[in-house]
Amino acid sequence: MEVLSLLNLDDLAQAFSKMGMFPVFDVAYYIVSILYLKYEPGSVEVSRRSPVASWLCAMLYCFSSYILADILLGSSPVDYFQYNSHILLASAVWYLVFYCPLNLFYKCVAFLPVKLVLVALKEVVRTRKIAAGVHHAHHAYHHGFFIMVIVGYVKGSGVALISNFEQLLRGVWRPETNEILSMSFPTKASLYGAILFTMQEAQWLPVSKSILILAFTLFMATSKVVMTARHSHGSPFALIESWVCHLLFGSPLGGAEEEHHHAPAPAASPIKTKEELGEGVRKRKAKKAE
Amino acid sequence: MEVLSLLNLDDLAQAFSKMGMFPVFDVAYYIVSILYLKYEPGSVEVSRRSPVASWLCAMLYCFSSYILADILLGSSPVDYFQYNSHILLASAVWYLVFYCPLNLFYKCVAFLPVKLVLVALKEVVRTRKIAAGVHHAHHAYHHGFFIMVIVGYVKGSGVALISNFEQLLRGVWRPETNEILSMSFPTKASLYGAILFTMQEAQWLPVSKSILILAFTLFMATSKVVMTARHSHGSPFALIESWVCHLLFGSPLGGAEEEHHHAPAPAASPIKTKEELGEGVRKRKAKKAE
Amino acid sequence: MEVLSLLNLDDLAQAFSKMGMFPVFDVAYYIVSILYLKYEPGSVEVSRRSPVASWLCAMLYCFSSYILADILLGSSPVDYFQYNSHILLASAVWYLVFYCPLNLFYKCVAFLPVKLVLVALKEVVRTRKIAAGVHHAHHAYHHGFFIMVIVGYVKGSGVALISNFEQLLRGVWRPETNEILSMSFPTKASLYGAILFTMQEAQWLPVSKSILILAFTLFMATSKVVMTARHSHGSPFALIESWVCHLLFGSPLGGAEEEHHHAPAPAASPIKTKEELGEGVRKRKAKKAE
Repeated sequence: MEVLSLLNLDDLAQAFSKMGMFPVFDVAYYIVSILYLKYEPGSVEVSRRSPVASWLCAMLYCFSSYILADILLGSSPVDYFQYNSHILLASAVWYLVFYCPLNLFYKCVAFLPVKLVLVALKEVVRTRKIAAGVHHAHHAYHHGFFIMVIVGYVKGSGVALISNFEQLLRGVWRPETNEILSMSFPTKASLYGAILFTMQEAQWLPVSKSILILAFTLFMATSKVVMTARHSHGSPFALIESWVCHLLFGSPLGGAEEEHHHAPAPAASPIKTKEELGEGVRKRKAKKAE
Repeated sequence: MEVLSLLNLDDLAQAFSKMGMFPVFDVAYYIVSILYLKYEPGSVEVSRRSPVASWLCAMLYCFSSYILADILLGSSPVDYFQYNSHILLASAVWYLVFYCPLNLFYKCVAFLPVKLVLVALKEVVRTRKIAAGVHHAHHAYHHGFFIMVIVGYVKGSGVALISNFEQLLRGVWRPETNEILSMSFPTKASLYGAILFTMQEAQWLPVSKSILILAFTLFMATSKVVMTARHSHGSPFALIESWVCHLLFGSPLGGAEEEHHHAPAPAASPIKTKEELGEGVRKRKAKKAE
Repeated sequence: MEVLSLLNLDDLAQAFSKMGMFPVFDVAYYIVSILYLKYEPGSVEVSRRSPVASWLCAMLYCFSSYILADILLGSSPVDYFQYNSHILLASAVWYLVFYCPLNLFYKCVAFLPVKLVLVALKEVVRTRKIAAGVHHAHHAYHHGFFIMVIVGYVKGSGVALISNFEQLLRGVWRPETNEILSMSFPTKASLYGAILFTMQEAQWLPVSKSILILAFTLFMATSKVVMTARHSHGSPFALIESWVCHLLFGSPLGGAEEEHHHAPAPAASPIKTKEELGEGVRKRKAKKAE
């Protein structure tokens, strides 16, 4: 009986991991991604002033994971743009989200029940991308475990990792933060996912890849759907993370103290602060050298 | 009689599209490009403080189109720097424009009649670059129409597309605008040219490539010479563009209203000042050109 | 007798240029590099807030030279990350420098006598990297002298050339300056070294490569050790440079006049502040040189 259920699970996982993503899942991915682009302040204005810039941003939202992975593995960054049907589909979604009369399309897909389904479908694609990225890197560098993690990570995180430069395209510049300095849940999950898939690829995990894909997809879809439904930004990793960070990188209290020492400096206006920091460096260097 | 004239036109176009660009046309390209660099506020100061930074900027002005296209197609970004004679020639032009005693060379090439000839020659090179870029991309991706347009576009636009980073090299940072957000005439024309050449390459246009090169060169050279002579920044595409944009992306009035909704936010503070500076720059350029 | 000594010198240089760098010299390189990262203002705070960002910065400090050279030559930027042992070693150094209890490791390696030894060892690695970079570029582009210089230069300078973007990763943005606009001693020396090694590779210098490596290593190690010991930021090239710059790029006085002509324009607003900052930097440097 147990063997049978296991076999069935294996079969299910196999079938799931072989299921084609184009076009249903991919369209869901494009819709949710470009929806997030429209949420960005100023992006509607950009779509009026410069459709080319808006289209480029939409393409970055949809295909950054491919662009970044191609760059990291030394291929042409526009390699994925050879798939005309994908680009045309994403362009159609971009057009409908931004320019549909009466904002009809936007209102439909931003309607919560619809959006929850789309978000769940998007996570299916994300997990597949991580697995494919790790596998691709494994193919290029057989023992390059760091490379596998990095490629899987960028495949899962996509545009978030280059959000500073995507914003720059829209005339917005926020240097004081970035996705690596303060990771959001999907970025963190992509990192952990990339590590898991790398361990699986290196055969340090006693599970098959299809089972891992199924499990990780279920975890991601559930988490994101719950978070989207509750408008929450908390991370399910918070507890474990704080414990591991305490163990590995010293007490957060110590860190907070450290911060207290440094915090007063960047209180005033940006440019001055930076200058003051610059001063600080030199003095500190001099002191340290002494 | 008509057949004969057509044949002659074909022959002329053939001969024109096979004409070598090196060294006369290329030198004109370098001169006009580095002239524009010298117009940039602060670039003369940079040339005194750090000749290396100034030289790098000059190289970006002359060879960005090759660098960007090489990056996009996955080659080495410095691939073009293997042509020592081109680099030496551009370096000589840079040296003469910035360091010639009594500013003699600058005064000669900035003299309006001379400049008009050079500008016309530069457009010949630009058209060739677009055609070559599209052809090159077609060779790498036989059905990658988006890739052909993108590569042709960057080959025609060159440094303009990375002007934010070129400025950064000179210590200037203006994130609130970029060439894609507010396209100048040459950038727009390069985009439309890249689309035309891609359609020709895909055999959707009933003209031969050499005829297209001849026609596009004539259009570009005439437009740029007239615009330079009249210190105008208007675009010959304005009318068609406003009509097409109205049709495709909704009424500009609606767009303007939209902007009104969003405008109050970034009204105060640095961003506005920088916008004004942008205005200033353009005015100053116009003055200098006079 | 003289022949014998020459032979011995040749043998010594040969042996020296064949000596393995891993692990002793490489570890010294990692330690000094990550030490400089810890000197950067705010980097300790970043190491508490986001270990991932801190680790990435540390990797950039250790491996930027490889990353940049790989990008320039069209390889995968993460190619070097396939050497797991190097990455693990650098990660261990990063961990010890930032998170060692009681800051013990940091205190040991920042102790001046220890640091001087490490700095000397680091320069041995730097020289090797320049030579290897030039050789690698020579292999790819047999007559690409500019490419050889550029690749050797980035191999020697490493993270300094992308410091703006490395800072951005830590949430710091200082666009008003960069390493090319105001070169530090190691960056300048790397440029001159790259030129020398390129001339050697092109057989325009009457010395063998191993002798050149030995001589350049001795020069770099001595200079850096003396400068570190004396907390000096002056450059041994200052005198020759000012003479050559005067000869090639006109008198600095003339340059100042030129500046007067252009300065009034960007007088108002943010840009001026940046200009003033630039002034400030220059003055401060001038003072230091005095």
